[in-house]
Amino acid sequence: MDFVMDRSALDDLKNAIRTIPDYPAPGIQFRDITTLLGDARAFRRAVDELVQPFAGLKIAKIAGIEARGFILGGAVAHQLSAGFVPVRKKGKLPHETVGMPYSLEYGDDEIEVHRDAVSRGERVLLVDDLVATGGTAEAAVKLLSSLGAEVVAACFIIDLPDLGGADRVRRLGVPVRTLVSFAGH
Amino acid sequence: MDFVMDRSALDDLKNAIRTIPDYPAPGIQFRDITTLLGDARAFRRAVDELVQPFAGLKIAKIAGIEARGFILGGAVAHQLSAGFVPVRKKGKLPHETVGMPYSLEYGDDEIEVHRDAVSRGERVLLVDDLVATGGTAEAAVKLLSSLGAEVVAACFIIDLPDLGGADRVRRLGVPVRTLVSFAGH
Repeated sequence: MDFVMDRSALDDLKNAIRTIPDYPAPGIQFRDITTLLGDARAFRRAVDELVQPFAGLKIAKIAGIEARGFILGGAVAHQLSAGFVPVRKKGKLPHETVGMPYSLEYGDDEIEVHRDAVSRGERVLLVDDLVATGGTAEAAVKLLSSLGAEVVAACFIIDLPDLGGADRVRRLGVPVRTLVSFAGH
Repeated sequence: MDFVMDRSALDDLKNAIRTIPDYPAPGIQFRDITTLLGDARAFRRAVDELVQPFAGLKIAKIAGIEARGFILGGAVAHQLSAGFVPVRKKGKLPHETVGMPYSLEYGDDEIEVHRDAVSRGERVLLVDDLVATGGTAEAAVKLLSSLGAEVVAACFIIDLPDLGGADRVRRLGVPVRTLVSFAGH
């Protein structure tokens, strides 16, 4: 898949993202998407651009990763008239769940979905605000696939390509769409 | 404000919500909205019905309460072409914040927004999935108002009227819209 977006529109999106130096730790440039979300035009443009290739693909459900992926995923689900599946941190979902562990910089964590959140063969689009190392996204793809869903693609507004997360998801056979990228961490 | 919705449409929404008995504690009937969110038709109908009275009111921003209010709020923001402001648990937002404490059954907690998330006079719609005691919603209204925003209304898919939260928000002078209600806790 190849998606072309107007360069100046991309620059507008990138400029709507705030960079916070040395957060949460010295040397880290934190990409703060709340300024983009708060800008009605930028938010709508990001959603529209993100889902444009998927409009005709009969996506049944959007899987959004807690917590910022919920905001973007809710909007994408509405845009595509799809259902929404929350991918949550362990212990947050009230019904029977299945989980998938993933590695963090220090130690492990686990994400969960409801066991009945997707059906076998259902076409699912994974959504989060940002892909960094791709650990959570990889776990989400494996988790949804283990329930029989077909993860059609994963999309993120922001890519941090130096951390390799988008390629990590692509190696699972899942196409990845991102809109803006920032070099470094 | 008086909003009338077709009775059978309301029943469809109510039936799309799963009740989990004795969760998270014995005697509590947990109203699980994930089944409604996962049902594309029910999710779209809930969003459309929720925002219908606000379409002409020039809402600038949707304030969604972490975490389920992010899903619904993202969809509502997209529907109304508004910006989105995350109302988060303390310590989750990366830039300068303002906070507001509120009481829980045991002890206190605090919600935060970015100080620059809303402008003076900006028209904001507060969104969450469910109103119970209304403690978080009340804190969110006070917090947004303290920044000069005009909280035009608060809307929730589910009301638990026996816990009095909707009335608590109305006493702040903020109209409340809910779609379905469940007696008991």
